[in-house]
Amino acid sequence: VVGIKVSVYGATGYTGYELYRLLKSHPMVEEVILKGRRTGRLSDFFPTVFEDAEIVPFEEEDDSSVAFLALPHTVSMEHVPALIGAGKKVIDLSADYRFSDAKIYEACYGVSHRDPANLSRAVYGIPEFFTEDIKGSHLIGNPGCYPTSVLIPLLPLAHERLIDENFFVFVDSKSGISGAGRKARENLHFPELYDSFAAYGVWNHRHQPEMEHILSKVAGCNLRVRFVPHLVPMSRGILSTIYFRVKDEVKAMNLLVDFYEEARMISFVEKLPSTKDVRGTNNLLYTFRNEGKEFVVISVIDNLVRGASGQAVENMNVVMGYEESAGLPSLPLFP
Amino acid sequence: VVGIKVSVYGATGYTGYELYRLLKSHPMVEEVILKGRRTGRLSDFFPTVFEDAEIVPFEEEDDSSVAFLALPHTVSMEHVPALIGAGKKVIDLSADYRFSDAKIYEACYGVSHRDPANLSRAVYGIPEFFTEDIKGSHLIGNPGCYPTSVLIPLLPLAHERLIDENFFVFVDSKSGISGAGRKARENLHFPELYDSFAAYGVWNHRHQPEMEHILSKVAGCNLRVRFVPHLVPMSRGILSTIYFRVKDEVKAMNLLVDFYEEARMISFVEKLPSTKDVRGTNNLLYTFRNEGKEFVVISVIDNLVRGASGQAVENMNVVMGYEESAGLPSLPLFP
Amino acid sequence: VVGIKVSVYGATGYTGYELYRLLKSHPMVEEVILKGRRTGRLSDFFPTVFEDAEIVPFEEEDDSSVAFLALPHTVSMEHVPALIGAGKKVIDLSADYRFSDAKIYEACYGVSHRDPANLSRAVYGIPEFFTEDIKGSHLIGNPGCYPTSVLIPLLPLAHERLIDENFFVFVDSKSGISGAGRKARENLHFPELYDSFAAYGVWNHRHQPEMEHILSKVAGCNLRVRFVPHLVPMSRGILSTIYFRVKDEVKAMNLLVDFYEEARMISFVEKLPSTKDVRGTNNLLYTFRNEGKEFVVISVIDNLVRGASGQAVENMNVVMGYEESAGLPSLPLFP
Amino acid sequence: VVGIKVSVYGATGYTGYELYRLLKSHPMVEEVILKGRRTGRLSDFFPTVFEDAEIVPFEEEDDSSVAFLALPHTVSMEHVPALIGAGKKVIDLSADYRFSDAKIYEACYGVSHRDPANLSRAVYGIPEFFTEDIKGSHLIGNPGCYPTSVLIPLLPLAHERLIDENFFVFVDSKSGISGAGRKARENLHFPELYDSFAAYGVWNHRHQPEMEHILSKVAGCNLRVRFVPHLVPMSRGILSTIYFRVKDEVKAMNLLVDFYEEARMISFVEKLPSTKDVRGTNNLLYTFRNEGKEFVVISVIDNLVRGASGQAVENMNVVMGYEESAGLPSLPLFP
Repeated sequence: VVGIKVSVYGATGYTGYELYRLLKSHPMVEEVILKGRRTGRLSDFFPTVFEDAEIVPFEEEDDSSVAFLALPHTVSMEHVPALIGAGKKVIDLSADYRFSDAKIYEACYGVSHRDPANLSRAVYGIPEFFTEDIKGSHLIGNPGCYPTSVLIPLLPLAHERLIDENFFVFVDSKSGISGAGRKARENLHFPELYDSFAAYGVWNHRHQPEMEHILSKVAGCNLRVRFVPHLVPMSRGILSTIYFRVKDEVKAMNLLVDFYEEARMISFVEKLPSTKDVRGTNNLLYTFRNEGKEFVVISVIDNLVRGASGQAVENMNVVMGYEESAGLPSLPLFP
Repeated sequence: VVGIKVSVYGATGYTGYELYRLLKSHPMVEEVILKGRRTGRLSDFFPTVFEDAEIVPFEEEDDSSVAFLALPHTVSMEHVPALIGAGKKVIDLSADYRFSDAKIYEACYGVSHRDPANLSRAVYGIPEFFTEDIKGSHLIGNPGCYPTSVLIPLLPLAHERLIDENFFVFVDSKSGISGAGRKARENLHFPELYDSFAAYGVWNHRHQPEMEHILSKVAGCNLRVRFVPHLVPMSRGILSTIYFRVKDEVKAMNLLVDFYEEARMISFVEKLPSTKDVRGTNNLLYTFRNEGKEFVVISVIDNLVRGASGQAVENMNVVMGYEESAGLPSLPLFP
Repeated sequence: VVGIKVSVYGATGYTGYELYRLLKSHPMVEEVILKGRRTGRLSDFFPTVFEDAEIVPFEEEDDSSVAFLALPHTVSMEHVPALIGAGKKVIDLSADYRFSDAKIYEACYGVSHRDPANLSRAVYGIPEFFTEDIKGSHLIGNPGCYPTSVLIPLLPLAHERLIDENFFVFVDSKSGISGAGRKARENLHFPELYDSFAAYGVWNHRHQPEMEHILSKVAGCNLRVRFVPHLVPMSRGILSTIYFRVKDEVKAMNLLVDFYEEARMISFVEKLPSTKDVRGTNNLLYTFRNEGKEFVVISVIDNLVRGASGQAVENMNVVMGYEESAGLPSLPLFP
Repeated sequence: VVGIKVSVYGATGYTGYELYRLLKSHPMVEEVILKGRRTGRLSDFFPTVFEDAEIVPFEEEDDSSVAFLALPHTVSMEHVPALIGAGKKVIDLSADYRFSDAKIYEACYGVSHRDPANLSRAVYGIPEFFTEDIKGSHLIGNPGCYPTSVLIPLLPLAHERLIDENFFVFVDSKSGISGAGRKARENLHFPELYDSFAAYGVWNHRHQPEMEHILSKVAGCNLRVRFVPHLVPMSRGILSTIYFRVKDEVKAMNLLVDFYEEARMISFVEKLPSTKDVRGTNNLLYTFRNEGKEFVVISVIDNLVRGASGQAVENMNVVMGYEESAGLPSLPLFP
């Protein structure tokens, strides 16, 4: 089998490096081309990378089949039209192609969308749920880390209209600090966070409308999400504790237990999962408890793998017709 | 002024040491007598204690005025009758005297209560809320760490019957590992917890009925709490994120802002508080957000100080007529 | 190519799991047989292992070609004779086959060696240095984690008799807590270690004679090592800071820069390396500084990979004639 | 007793806050005046300070008796002449007044000293060793954090000329991240440091000449220190492992055991100390091991207390004739 060439736009952040790490050992990938605003050797940006690589300018042409965009919001949409035009499949890790409706994007990110044509054709990339849409797509909006942890367990319920829209869906999420990106900021300075825990963005984080938008679209009715993210003094992992009410508890229980039975990288578990159970993997584990119609779902992911770069690779796998889990490690780095 | 003598039962655990640390520099305390099942020097149990002290057997008589019991559940009630009989004021940090109703205790802890007479006279020790009851009391049931973080902000609302009993109160709490005590267990082994996050005791933790019992008693109606605790890979601190619905949002907002205005160690704050803001102190900080009648309250405490030993010292202060904050540091150890 | 079968004795500890993780994705390994004193599913011992596996009793026969022993000291030598007798290649991660001289073993571990015949034939498994010996061997004594970090950079110097035996070699090592194993102990309880740092086993740790033995044997003279290990409040990684004097600084510098140039998983680097640079990999990075004949070498490894299971896999690769780095990830999990 | 007024220059960093924390509860201090380049409320710079305070401009006059300067190197010497001129006692936490010889300062910090007159009169502030000098002084150069951990145990040996000057003193120190200050930098970003360990400034850190200068001056001969600092992924604490050779081991052992017997805040201990044993206190613990004339000393301090602000307060105590340990907590915050 001859492998493909892929390019990674934005190679110097955490998700860019994680894409590199996963794609370098992907059985179907022959070459990984790194592109950046800042160029140089990858080892200039990462401590002693063993398999070093050159980062070339964005503008430099290449013959990759798939382009991964690990770029900030609003920067992605400057590059996508040309990449699509060049016949590449594009998987965008920013928020630029997550909302089918440009108005929601604009309300949420405070800028007008400059590529509405492609936006309307983009597919939201939860590979196990929107599989068929992704298969035929040229442009995937890779989901946010928090939404991934919430939507995977809840979408089957939303689709069957089992979530009671008369109640809020309360999402209480906890994330390792790598989710805040690689840029040094005073509030992310080591001693400010160590041995400490806090919430941020209460009910006004940008992932709240993302969850509401996708859940409501799938449910066909207006589901209201109220989201509180918290920062855990650790590097990796997201755990979401999700409170909601269903219309039929027996159907909900069955769906939660059965829906992802065939999925190799999503698992309903009885024991309470920990973020360490999925570290370095693309797996999502979830469990639930209920009292009648009142449910709590608990899910865990690695925010940089399933929450970003790993899911992006999985989306490539689906788009290209590879095995869903190709190149994605299934065993966590433990401890 | 001549200070008093106090005794600490159970000196080798985290809360026992914390009592010692606080009481040794308390301006009204002349002597701290340490008692334990395991005797010896305090430095046998704690690395290099500078002001070393002898731990004497439980049985040894002493002339302390106040006894602090940092003992496991069910052990406290073996000691309390004799201590009360000897005319001492007793502040019990176990769960043995937290429930005015022995049946709830028995359902929750799975043993029959062996001291129902004193139980019926015990006062639940939230010093800023049950001040008058505590003043005249000989026996204080010191609250659990999680309930402290939840009840302080919610009790004023409960008392004014502002919490809507038709909805659950969802309590999503996150605690440092010291809350699990000092005994080594496989699940608390350092590498099993480091860089990881998980929930435990979902909707069946013993602090759930404690919160329900106190809230409902104060509200005069049945409030239902559903509680999910989580372990944060850090040593100290609890943050609770509390979701509930009120009957009148204006009254609720005013009460949340104003109720503790005079309290020196409880503060409503506008910014989102972090556990680091209260480390090593007896302070509780809380804030809230709401959308109409839907509220989220976020509170932080140091689980070993306000959540245990510091609140116990404050209860002594109230019982003895000292200044409420005597001996309690107001500035956190930062960072 | 048809892969081989391998067995792992002692599957429930950290190194056993790490062997499983690496071997499961090894391109030349067809099947991994797990064996233990405690049997059951691997997921009984590890949180939610995705690719679950059965742990069978030690006694159960199998047709593996290579046996990895992740067993405590003294337990390995009970199993090795039979395994060798059955024609298997054995890679032992305990200390039982690290010393060619039984007397040193006995002085160090306080027990008599019960398999001296095999001991005398065992090879000390630093694959890049003792390559030829390992190739023809049936029994490899896999090095200790600390010695690995020290011997790899120093053996070339010892071999060329460049280390001045009139001075001590001071080894100041710092290790993550996973090096202490998986068994819960009070001093490894999470809150006892978090936000704290300490030394242990000063000048009397068992790895001190291991380093002295190998270094001296290779140097052909008596080199004296004085070793101070420290525990870092983190999970993984060892950094060793090594102080020594050489006889000829130019030769020493050249050797340090050049010796491992061809080794894919060992690298001299100019920048100061961090344990994070090698996390989850079998790589060793080292650098040095000198003032005349006075040298300091700094090396980093992942204690569970290069310091244990990864080096064991590499030893298998050499023994079996596979590519040295087969099955060993080269890019660290970062951050 | 009427207390004094003190001022703190540079109130928004870690050492400035720590000075505030300690001085606010100091029994002889009536008022703490905070001064800064950046003015405002203390709570603008620290999360929710309970006892809030105003930070006034440097220029504003005040009637404090003692001025603490928690300022960057080179900034202190701009303020000291005027403060001394105004009759205040000055305790400077920067390096500006640590070297009696301006040339060493200039070689080390790369700038010329602009206040040589005061420099020549400044006293190096290790209160238990230079007690008499400090008593009569108006200007104290408060020692660096690493030098404090090294000099306190070694100065008595140096003074008795017991350290063999023919060998290097190798200092291998490990520090929590708060020692790097409060300014956000990419290499101090939380995920870059978490679960990782590295050295920095090998043999070229500015504290190396500081240790050499003081040790040599006290010894009356040229002692050579080679210093390797490391960053531990934790907030607070320094542990130094110090290797050196003595001329007479019996005298050295006796001196190490006995010298600080009367000091309330310095203790020789037999067990290996941990940084947690001194957290939040001004205590220094040390132990040693030796083989003949070869010694290793291990010492621990809290870098922000004994390594900076606590020692500064102790210096004030000595200068003002207060009890040495006044205002300094003796029991660590544990865990």
